[in-house]
Amino acid sequence: MKKFTITALALCISVSLSAQEQVDMATVQKIRQEGLENSKVMDIAFQITDVAGPRLSNSPGLKRAQDWAVRQFTSWGLKNVHLEAWGKFGKGWQIDKYYAATTLPYYHAIIGAPKAWTPGTKGAIKSEVILIKADTVTDLLPYKGKLAGKIVMFDQVTLQPLQNSYKPDAVRYTDAELDKMADATAQPQGQRPRPANNMMAQMMKMREVRAAMASFMLEEQVGLILTYARGNHGTFFTSNGAPYALDAKPVSPELEISAEDYLHMLRLLRAGEKVEVEADIRTSFYDQDPQGYNVIAEIPGTDKKLKEEVVMIGGHYDSWHSATGATDNAAGAAVMMETMRILKAINFKPKRTIRIALWSSEEQGLFGSRGYVAQHFGDPKTMVLTKDHKKISAYYNLDNGTGAIRGIYLQGNAQAGPIFKEWLSPFHDLGAKTVTINNTGGTDHQAFDAVGIPGFQFIQDPMDYNTRTHHSNQDTFDRLAEEDLKRAATIVASFVYNTSERNEQIPRKELPKAPETAKP
Amino acid sequence: MKKFTITALALCISVSLSAQEQVDMATVQKIRQEGLENSKVMDIAFQITDVAGPRLSNSPGLKRAQDWAVRQFTSWGLKNVHLEAWGKFGKGWQIDKYYAATTLPYYHAIIGAPKAWTPGTKGAIKSEVILIKADTVTDLLPYKGKLAGKIVMFDQVTLQPLQNSYKPDAVRYTDAELDKMADATAQPQGQRPRPANNMMAQMMKMREVRAAMASFMLEEQVGLILTYARGNHGTFFTSNGAPYALDAKPVSPELEISAEDYLHMLRLLRAGEKVEVEADIRTSFYDQDPQGYNVIAEIPGTDKKLKEEVVMIGGHYDSWHSATGATDNAAGAAVMMETMRILKAINFKPKRTIRIALWSSEEQGLFGSRGYVAQHFGDPKTMVLTKDHKKISAYYNLDNGTGAIRGIYLQGNAQAGPIFKEWLSPFHDLGAKTVTINNTGGTDHQAFDAVGIPGFQFIQDPMDYNTRTHHSNQDTFDRLAEEDLKRAATIVASFVYNTSERNEQIPRKELPKAPETAKP
Repeated sequence: MKKFTITALALCISVSLSAQEQVDMATVQKIRQEGLENSKVMDIAFQITDVAGPRLSNSPGLKRAQDWAVRQFTSWGLKNVHLEAWGKFGKGWQIDKYYAATTLPYYHAIIGAPKAWTPGTKGAIKSEVILIKADTVTDLLPYKGKLAGKIVMFDQVTLQPLQNSYKPDAVRYTDAELDKMADATAQPQGQRPRPANNMMAQMMKMREVRAAMASFMLEEQVGLILTYARGNHGTFFTSNGAPYALDAKPVSPELEISAEDYLHMLRLLRAGEKVEVEADIRTSFYDQDPQGYNVIAEIPGTDKKLKEEVVMIGGHYDSWHSATGATDNAAGAAVMMETMRILKAINFKPKRTIRIALWSSEEQGLFGSRGYVAQHFGDPKTMVLTKDHKKISAYYNLDNGTGAIRGIYLQGNAQAGPIFKEWLSPFHDLGAKTVTINNTGGTDHQAFDAVGIPGFQFIQDPMDYNTRTHHSNQDTFDRLAEEDLKRAATIVASFVYNTSERNEQIPRKELPKAPETAKP
Repeated sequence: MKKFTITALALCISVSLSAQEQVDMATVQKIRQEGLENSKVMDIAFQITDVAGPRLSNSPGLKRAQDWAVRQFTSWGLKNVHLEAWGKFGKGWQIDKYYAATTLPYYHAIIGAPKAWTPGTKGAIKSEVILIKADTVTDLLPYKGKLAGKIVMFDQVTLQPLQNSYKPDAVRYTDAELDKMADATAQPQGQRPRPANNMMAQMMKMREVRAAMASFMLEEQVGLILTYARGNHGTFFTSNGAPYALDAKPVSPELEISAEDYLHMLRLLRAGEKVEVEADIRTSFYDQDPQGYNVIAEIPGTDKKLKEEVVMIGGHYDSWHSATGATDNAAGAAVMMETMRILKAINFKPKRTIRIALWSSEEQGLFGSRGYVAQHFGDPKTMVLTKDHKKISAYYNLDNGTGAIRGIYLQGNAQAGPIFKEWLSPFHDLGAKTVTINNTGGTDHQAFDAVGIPGFQFIQDPMDYNTRTHHSNQDTFDRLAEEDLKRAATIVASFVYNTSERNEQIPRKELPKAPETAKP
C-alpha cells in the first residue's frame, strides 16, 4: 500500500505539475489560424522598412516608423500607446546626398554610404586619392600640410584579397546542431574572459593611434576619408564613424565603400597608378530633441489579481543607416507587433497585462531597453529594485534576423526549461522544439536579465544574417522570409498567451549581485 | 609465329601511335616551372581589368587594353604584333557620370549603371516615378502626353520577390560530374531545336510590343527608364539597351539598377506610395573609327616545312561596361597572354607558328573571331575556303571564367580524344583530366568550328560565373582565383607546345556543308 500510495502521489504531483503547463490547444489553434492563415506580418514589415526607411537612432526615419507604430497600435485597439523617453541619447543624423566615383584612371561609380554621424563633404569635391601608410602617429608626419581637401585612404597590411565563397550565404540549423544546443549543460554565470594584459595594452594603443589619426586628419582638413569594413559583391557592412553625443568633437567626412571599390583603388595606388575621386556627400544632424524614445503599447490584463502583473515582449526598432534594417531588426519588431495583432484579433482577454516595447538605440548599446528597465524595474549597478520588479513575469525578445524560431535560450534559467518545452510542443511541426540552457547575448533581453527578470530570446535559423544582412547596405525587405516570420509570430503569441494565463510567474534565477557589492 | 607476328605488329602500331602523342616531360616540366612558380598571370589580369577598365566594344577602355597588349607582346619579343581590323562594328560608348537616388519617400542612393549605348539624361533630372502597367501597345495609350521628362518603370507580373540562397555562389565540378562528361557519347551535329510555332509567334509579338513601347517612350520624351534584369545583394547583371550601329535609331535613357532598388520602388508604387527619383547620367559615343579590331601576335615557327602552319590560341578581350570584365573575359585573355609569355620565357622555338588573338565584340556575336576567320580561313555561309584553311592545326579558346581547367571539350571531334587524353596526363595532379565529346557553345572557338577548323574550348570549374560575375557589375579583379589561372596557363602552354611539335595536324571532323548547299 505504501508503495501504491507513493506511486499515486508521484503520479499526482506529475499531473499537477504538467497541468500547470498544459497548453490550451483550442486557443493555440486560434492563434495558429490567425498567425498562419491571416498574417499581416509582411505588411507590417513593409511599413517599417520600405515606407519608413533607415531608422538610425533619433533620425527622422526612426521617428516616422515610431509614429506609424503608435497609429497602428491605436488602430488595433491597444491601450496606453505612447512614445516613452528612456533618457538622453544625443544627435540624430541622416544622409541627404551620396555621390562618389573614380574619375581616374577611368570613370566608375562607387558603391558606398557615409559612416553614421559623419559630416558631408564641403560641396562637390574632386581630388587625387592619397594612400596613407601609417601604423603610428609618427608615420603621419610626412603627410603634414599635404592633405587639405584631399581624399585619402589607408594602406593596411591586414587588408586581404576577397575569397570566392563555396558556402551558401543562407543556412538553417541542422537537427544535429539543435540537438547539441538542447544537450548543453548550465555554465556558471560569469563575465566574459578578459583579454590578456598585453592584448589589452595593444588594443588601448590601437585606440590611441586611431584617435590621434582622427585628430590629425581633422587638423589637416582632409576632404574625405575612404574606408571599408567587410562584405563583398556590392554588399558592404557599416556603422558609425563618429560619436552621437551633442557635444561630440567634430570629425572628418568618412565614407564606407564596397570592398570591390576599396580594393580596386588600393591595388592601383600600390602599383603607383594615379587615382582620382569625385564626391558630393551631404548629411544632416538633428539635435532639437536629444531624448531617446521607445514605443510602448498594451493589452490590459483582465484578472482581478493578476492584471497588475505584466508580460513583456519586444525587439529593437532602430537600425543602421545604409539600408532599411529589415532583418536587424524590422523582422523582430514586425513579429512582435504581429503578435499583439494576433492576440487582439482572436479577442484574447489576458489575465496579466501584455505589453510591447519597440526599443531604440539598441545598436549603440541597448540604451532603450536599459533605460526602460532602469526606470521601471531597477538599476543593475546597485540592484536597487522598484516595486514593479516583482510584477513582471517575463520578457521575450526577437532580434536574430528573419530565420524561423527553432526554440528558445533559457539564459541559464533551468527552471523555465520544462515549462517552455511544454509550450513548444504544439509547434514541433513548425520546426520549433529546442530548449537550451545556453545564453545568447547582444540584445535587449539582457537589460532584463541584468536585474534578475526572466528575459529570453528565441533561437532562430541563422539564414544570411552574418554573411549579407546584419548592419549591411543589403538589409532590405527582400531578405525577409515570409513563412518564417508568420510562424515566429504564431509561436511568440502562444508563449505570451501561456505566460499571461499561467498561475505562477515564470520562475526566476537567483538575483544578480550588484557589481559594487560583488567585489570582495 | 603468325600469332606472334600479329601481336608484335599490334604492339608496334600501338607504340607508334602513342609515340606520336608521347609528351616530352622535360619541356612540360619547364612549362610547369615557369607557369606555376614564376607566373605573371595576375599582373596581366590587373592591367586588363583594374588599369584599363571596362572594355565594351570600341570603347576607350578596350582601346587602352589593346594598346597595352600590343606594348606587352612587343616587350616579350613576340613578332607580327598588331591590331587587325576584322570589319565594321559601329559606335563605341562609355559612362561619363552615373548618379541616381530616390528622394521620396526618403533619400536612398541607387546602385546601378546606364545600359550600354543608351544616352544620358538631359542634365540632372528629378521626377516622380511613374509605374507603367502595359502588356500591349494599347495599354500605353492612357499614358500619352503624361511622360515627358518623367522617370518611369514597368510593372510586370513576372517580377518575383528575391529568394534566400541556400546554395554556394561558387562551385567546382565534382568527380561525378566530370565522369559524366567523360562518358558522354557523340551527339549528331544539328541545329538547336526551333521553338514551336506558337512560341515563335509569341516571341515575335513580344519583340514587336517592346519595339513599339521603345518608340512610344521616345516620342513621349520620357526622362529615364528604370529597369533590372537579375542579380541580388548589390550585384546586378546588365547588357545593352540600344543598338551600336552608326545609324541606329535613337532610344530613351535607360538605367539598369539593382534588384533591391527596383523592387523597393515597385513595392512602394504598387502600394500607392509616392516615389521620387533624381538622376544625372552622362554617356559618350565614339564613332570616328567604326572598325572593330583584334590584337594579334606570334611566336614564329622555326621548322622549314611546318613554320607556314599555325597553332592559334585566343579569348575575347571585350567586356560589358558595368565592371572590368575580370572573369568575362580578362581571365581567359590573361591566361592566353601568359601562355605566350611562358613559351617565350622557356625560350621555346616552335616548329609551327604560334599565334594569339585577343578578340573584340565577342559579346555582340563573336564578331571579332568570325571576322578574322572569314578573312583568313573561309566563309561558313558558302564554305569557300582560303589556302590558309589547310595551314591551321587547331584553335584553343578560354572564356568560361576564372575556374581551373578540368579538361577539354572535343566539339564532337572523336579523333582528337586520345591525343588530348595523352596531353592531359601530366596534369592530373592539377585536376585536369577530363576529355568529353560534348560541345560547348557561346564563344569564339565556334567561329573556327563553323568552317571545319578544329576549335576547342577547355572545361573550367564554374565558380561563381553564373551567380555573380558573368555580365555583372561585380565582375572585378577580386573574383580572379590566382592558383586556377596559373594552372590554366600552364596547361594551355603545354597543349600549344604539343600541337606545335606534333608531326601531323590535329585531325579534323568532316567539313561542314554550306547552309545554302545543305538545303535539299
